[in-house]
Amino acid sequence: MQTHHEKELADLKEKLLIMASHAEAAVTRAVQAVVTRDDVLAAQVRADDNILDEFEKQLDDRSVALLAKAPLASDLRLVLMVMKISQNLERIGDEATKIANRARDLAQEPPLKVNLDVTGMARMVLDMVKGALDAFVRRDATAARDLIPRDKEVDALNKRYQAELIELMMRDSASVRRALWLTVVSKSLERIADHAKNIAEDVVYLYEALDIRHGGAAK
Amino acid sequence: MQTHHEKELADLKEKLLIMASHAEAAVTRAVQAVVTRDDVLAAQVRADDNILDEFEKQLDDRSVALLAKAPLASDLRLVLMVMKISQNLERIGDEATKIANRARDLAQEPPLKVNLDVTGMARMVLDMVKGALDAFVRRDATAARDLIPRDKEVDALNKRYQAELIELMMRDSASVRRALWLTVVSKSLERIADHAKNIAEDVVYLYEALDIRHGGAAK
Repeated sequence: MQTHHEKELADLKEKLLIMASHAEAAVTRAVQAVVTRDDVLAAQVRADDNILDEFEKQLDDRSVALLAKAPLASDLRLVLMVMKISQNLERIGDEATKIANRARDLAQEPPLKVNLDVTGMARMVLDMVKGALDAFVRRDATAARDLIPRDKEVDALNKRYQAELIELMMRDSASVRRALWLTVVSKSLERIADHAKNIAEDVVYLYEALDIRHGGAAK
Repeated sequence: MQTHHEKELADLKEKLLIMASHAEAAVTRAVQAVVTRDDVLAAQVRADDNILDEFEKQLDDRSVALLAKAPLASDLRLVLMVMKISQNLERIGDEATKIANRARDLAQEPPLKVNLDVTGMARMVLDMVKGALDAFVRRDATAARDLIPRDKEVDALNKRYQAELIELMMRDSASVRRALWLTVVSKSLERIADHAKNIAEDVVYLYEALDIRHGGAAK
């Protein structure tokens, strides 16, 4: 049977997972708003951002309450990691809002002929986010560690897209504003991959008690 | 006389302040590298980034050790805030590195004629960072709260610079690459102001036990 304390920890984790599904949905819809030029959907993403803010606050409060009860060292680390992961999820939500803002701007202007697979890039990035949370749930430091190098793939894709957009801006000055908005979308996705990497590193740290953030042991 | 525990807390705070001075120096030098077109200085900023990473790790480790001793509720909150502030400082260092990278790129190309006061913007942003840390040291929630609206001023300045750079890119396609690099510098400074605002909000939370993050009571 679960003790009261164990139940509180399980609830905390569950709440974090619900938060994660909101964050993933926000990114999916923001990117969909860019691709389908849907400014109503974009407005929804912006309006929903406070849901993630609220989740972060609630998770912080519960975490502090749990920490105050002087839990075991292993629980302590778990609770601290929930706080860190929730902060990353909240920032993923902020990036989704940035993407949604650019979706709104792009929807007001004629479509730009450019060969960027924003949906595919979003899929890569969301796979990382999901994978990191899965690894957290399954206590799988190896799976978390395997995710980390995928951040470099997203970085490379973002660099390629930035270069293509720069070329377009140089070729066609009428495209500058829209192309710049698309650089923001690509950069936001790249930053979401960073957050996913941060979460993966936290999961490794949590289950291996080894700090590989900032490239220590991962190099 | 200080107890051993009080001394550990004082040491933790002092280490955080040393970390803050490194973060501020990184931003100052990165911006100087942009303005003076100094790619040696830019390379130094990049090389020093791991100092901040190392500080963050050490502060995390000490914080976890302190938390594990089941401190008073007030200490608990202080230690958690040190962890949050150090994460923000580490990210300020990341932005300094981004600025330094663009400084290096800009130094390879002819100067761009554009009327951006990057030094002035950096001063505004660094004042916020310093102010937030000062408020932390002086336990001054009011001073911290007063800093928060200044983030909006930096946002407005960044928007103006982005608009000016877009115009330049449209007018002169040869400027696209360099102007885009400058948009990155301006955005990085804007993001540093965000981090300063986060720190200020944490200080308010710490000393008023009131969560105004995400605009709650500050509206």
